[in-house]
Amino acid sequence: MSERYDAWGALERLRQAGPLVHCITNYVAMDVTANALLAIGASPAMVHAGDEVEEFVSISSALVVNIGTLSAPWVAAMERAADRAVALGTPWVLDPVGTGATAYRTRTARDLSGRKPSVIRGNASEILSLAGEVGGTKGVDSTRGADEASGVARELARGLGCVVAVTGATDYVTDGTRTLAVEHGHPMMTRVTALGCALTGITGAFLAVEPEPLLASAYALALFGLAGELAASGAIGPGTLRVRLMDALHVLDTVTDREIRIREV
Amino acid sequence: MSERYDAWGALERLRQAGPLVHCITNYVAMDVTANALLAIGASPAMVHAGDEVEEFVSISSALVVNIGTLSAPWVAAMERAADRAVALGTPWVLDPVGTGATAYRTRTARDLSGRKPSVIRGNASEILSLAGEVGGTKGVDSTRGADEASGVARELARGLGCVVAVTGATDYVTDGTRTLAVEHGHPMMTRVTALGCALTGITGAFLAVEPEPLLASAYALALFGLAGELAASGAIGPGTLRVRLMDALHVLDTVTDREIRIREV
Amino acid sequence: MSERYDAWGALERLRQAGPLVHCITNYVAMDVTANALLAIGASPAMVHAGDEVEEFVSISSALVVNIGTLSAPWVAAMERAADRAVALGTPWVLDPVGTGATAYRTRTARDLSGRKPSVIRGNASEILSLAGEVGGTKGVDSTRGADEASGVARELARGLGCVVAVTGATDYVTDGTRTLAVEHGHPMMTRVTALGCALTGITGAFLAVEPEPLLASAYALALFGLAGELAASGAIGPGTLRVRLMDALHVLDTVTDREIRIREV
Repeated sequence: MSERYDAWGALERLRQAGPLVHCITNYVAMDVTANALLAIGASPAMVHAGDEVEEFVSISSALVVNIGTLSAPWVAAMERAADRAVALGTPWVLDPVGTGATAYRTRTARDLSGRKPSVIRGNASEILSLAGEVGGTKGVDSTRGADEASGVARELARGLGCVVAVTGATDYVTDGTRTLAVEHGHPMMTRVTALGCALTGITGAFLAVEPEPLLASAYALALFGLAGELAASGAIGPGTLRVRLMDALHVLDTVTDREIRIREV
Repeated sequence: MSERYDAWGALERLRQAGPLVHCITNYVAMDVTANALLAIGASPAMVHAGDEVEEFVSISSALVVNIGTLSAPWVAAMERAADRAVALGTPWVLDPVGTGATAYRTRTARDLSGRKPSVIRGNASEILSLAGEVGGTKGVDSTRGADEASGVARELARGLGCVVAVTGATDYVTDGTRTLAVEHGHPMMTRVTALGCALTGITGAFLAVEPEPLLASAYALALFGLAGELAASGAIGPGTLRVRLMDALHVLDTVTDREIRIREV
Repeated sequence: MSERYDAWGALERLRQAGPLVHCITNYVAMDVTANALLAIGASPAMVHAGDEVEEFVSISSALVVNIGTLSAPWVAAMERAADRAVALGTPWVLDPVGTGATAYRTRTARDLSGRKPSVIRGNASEILSLAGEVGGTKGVDSTRGADEASGVARELARGLGCVVAVTGATDYVTDGTRTLAVEHGHPMMTRVTALGCALTGITGAFLAVEPEPLLASAYALALFGLAGELAASGAIGPGTLRVRLMDALHVLDTVTDREIRIREV
């Protein structure tokens, strides 16, 4: 199984390349996303001005767009950056934070999802909302399970022509044809802010080194989740968990000799 | 005393409800505020766009407004959100960061304080400035003691018809008639940025589960301060203090079996 | 050597003064910069609104300008704040993050560098870009060594009439006539986001208590680097490093009895 899903090989390529990952993300997530990307071996940059996003995309290996604290000028920059990424063949990943919570958020997320992202990564409520279902969000947290959303994710992936990842107790990632289940992570991770956003950032880093978005997304889910497990073991609470997660992303290696739990479903 | 001021009962209700707390707060405070709210059991969301603040308030259980890094579009959103909260009967708390430091800041804080907040939480300099006294602030830090400001806080509470909390070595919280003194916290907490802002966030969470703002505010002060004491004991410096504080908020429980030091003065 | 370069004496003055340091910095760096400044004993404030930056500069002991996440309204505020600082004789330090990565960024950094900063602090790529050399940046990270840039830094310092600090494995700081080399720090510090930005903040704090910008800058480099070394010793990865760095800045003292490695070159 580890031969088929070579997450460790992708991690090694990531660390050798140290890809520049251009992030247009929310204020809450910037610190933890940048630190997670640095810890795992990528080179993050947060750049959002309309005056420079297109030029910055052109020197980056991947783009991350996250609407967590969206506002009109930022949305305009996201659109320009996404369009430029597509024009250049640069992979990009969308995190539709809180879609379904307000009409503005839903409208923005749907618009961006139509601009040919390589991957969309969200919780169950967000993915259901993107697919047109109503309800199930509590602010930026999900009230629905990922299992519930995996069928809808497959439809959405087919309709948009991209990969869709739904995260929860089990994560599902699908390109509309194949669906992979990833069994990693720890419940205490939901008690640290913006770890879903950081995972989206890590997905961007894997997109820079793994040409198959389905695999890039699965590897990000598996290794970020595994780092979370390592961090949670011995953590007293969310404070130590976050610190240990950054350490774990940095030291994560084949020597940890953990099984990568990715399987086709 | 613990029967009269049932902070533990309120904490239990908070954890069961997991209230959605809508925060319009400053850039510096977002990470630590979101993490403190998650650690104690609430569900925070940072949302500031004029296009969605009113809708977001309508799905939230409490609103937190903090002017730390204010600018014109944010202030406009704060005003709309606050007015909507009042219209809906949703409790809201104001943190007038740095009032008195600049004319713009003072004007904005006074305007917001007139929009019927449930609670205003500030340091002595900020509360004195709101009440019309001049001087005593050093940027966002206070140069005055909370004791000095408690009488003024009582007048201010009476004038505005809200609860006013002044934090310092001893914290005072008053509705203009009754005044409670809270004896919790640790001096090293002033060496970690935005812990006052995080406390204001926690106050929002308690407002969502405790109908009496005077008590909600006192419980937030007492339990956040107690978590800070637990965190400081064994902390080497502000780095470990912050990490341990997040852990402490998470594990805080009656089993810690600490006295809650709230008394009427 | 420690008599000639009295970093410890300057640190003591800093802690006694607790200077208010006005920061207009990037979203990613705000938390860690504020925490580093508080940990070492200064009083930071992040204030960026055009409506108040000039007034805020007038009550501050130093100004820090960092273009990491620049946009038009922020740049306008930076210019006004910088001009006001110069008019008042308040020292200010510029961090030209990512200069060279985009035309907008380069143009902004050059404009600001012409507004009489006391100190410019950047990595080799940024300093080379400011001096008109092309290439060598990967987003916000440098692909060039500080040694390579020290000659150019000297020319730049002479041309602009300010101090220029180039950070790398060895740091160089020059006023165009004298050049000091500082040998402190740890490679793992590059795996924590915004530590360069935090160092620029600390430089602002030393400018508030040390009238000679060359020395203020060297002391900031030496003591921040020394704190990083203490933090790295025993750190598992970048998560613990950051926490330990904040602790080290707080407890840093002559009793640590470490040699300060500053020498004229």
